[in-house]
Amino acid sequence: MTENTTRRGRRPAAQVRAEVVAATAELLREDGVSAVTFDRVATRSGASKTTLYKWWASPGELAAEAYFVTSKPALKFPDSGDIARDVGAQLRAFVRLLTTTHHGRVIAELIGAAQFDPSLAAAVSEKYTLPRRTLAMEYFARARERGQLRDDVDLALLVDQLWGACYNRLLVPDAPLDERFADALVVNVLHGAAAPAGSAEDAADPATDL
Amino acid sequence: MTENTTRRGRRPAAQVRAEVVAATAELLREDGVSAVTFDRVATRSGASKTTLYKWWASPGELAAEAYFVTSKPALKFPDSGDIARDVGAQLRAFVRLLTTTHHGRVIAELIGAAQFDPSLAAAVSEKYTLPRRTLAMEYFARARERGQLRDDVDLALLVDQLWGACYNRLLVPDAPLDERFADALVVNVLHGAAAPAGSAEDAADPATDL
Repeated sequence: MTENTTRRGRRPAAQVRAEVVAATAELLREDGVSAVTFDRVATRSGASKTTLYKWWASPGELAAEAYFVTSKPALKFPDSGDIARDVGAQLRAFVRLLTTTHHGRVIAELIGAAQFDPSLAAAVSEKYTLPRRTLAMEYFARARERGQLRDDVDLALLVDQLWGACYNRLLVPDAPLDERFADALVVNVLHGAAAPAGSAEDAADPATDL
Repeated sequence: MTENTTRRGRRPAAQVRAEVVAATAELLREDGVSAVTFDRVATRSGASKTTLYKWWASPGELAAEAYFVTSKPALKFPDSGDIARDVGAQLRAFVRLLTTTHHGRVIAELIGAAQFDPSLAAAVSEKYTLPRRTLAMEYFARARERGQLRDDVDLALLVDQLWGACYNRLLVPDAPLDERFADALVVNVLHGAAAPAGSAEDAADPATDL
């Protein structure tokens, strides 16, 4: 403890903070969100626990900051003007991020822990989900301006029916989260699941698949 | 401990189990999932911790069982034959359950804790989300048979675009979860967000709203 205090005394606050965040990001990658305790972060970073308590309301909030600062999960949103292609590319990249890297586990655990930690919930929203939601809605607003979306469509809802549907399969894995799912989500969000008007009569055919 | 063992000795296992589950359900309603520890449940139910460890892999798994056994969240799925009306009624009831009762908090916490507890994740899926998903998909299969849904639509995906979108707003509350949202989800899942073909040209009008 004395050693930590001495070392901290010599380092500027910004440097201590960066070292704490880097140590937290390491713990997060190695063992997930539950590995991020103030004890373990203090030991690994050399910062005192007093400092950690001063700067972060909870280990969860620190974990969220470390994740967002060090990984800057891709926020690219291609805009070729072709809405099915652009949203499809973004959603497939998101699914790949969630399923083929450690990001999926970290994001699931951050959202999971946020259910018990309001300061973490605020950090996840402010640093991660809201900026991504805004970016998507800006894209949708441009698409609507180009006449590709109905004027009366609720743009926020599209985010929940695309990315929210993927989060659902990440958090409650009852059905596969893959690129095929991503592509099908985009088609259905744009064109709907209802049969074309007038086709209902055909369905009386008992040979129809169930 | 001696007292517990003695009492347990006098009661049949089924009765002990029922008392444990009832005590857990009380803790859950009072203080949420994090209140459900084997210590507190043992104290309140009079069962020994040894018994709890023998019957449940984790306090989370016990919490899930207590929730599903005692609350039996409504699984009704009306089938009037009008898909927009039936799914709308079910989804509005689900949103009311999540937002106006303690169920929303409990479900969010169960899914949250499940990110760190595989036995809880299995219980949530088996006892809650999968049966609901199956019920919805059975309804959609009947609707497809009636010619109300396209033959090529992925029925599982509709569940994620309706209930999954609601879970997204429950777990990451960046936008309001209310009955208006539920209604708009149903309209969009059925009819899609794309503008009718041929209307793209109109959008060059600079007066179009952004």
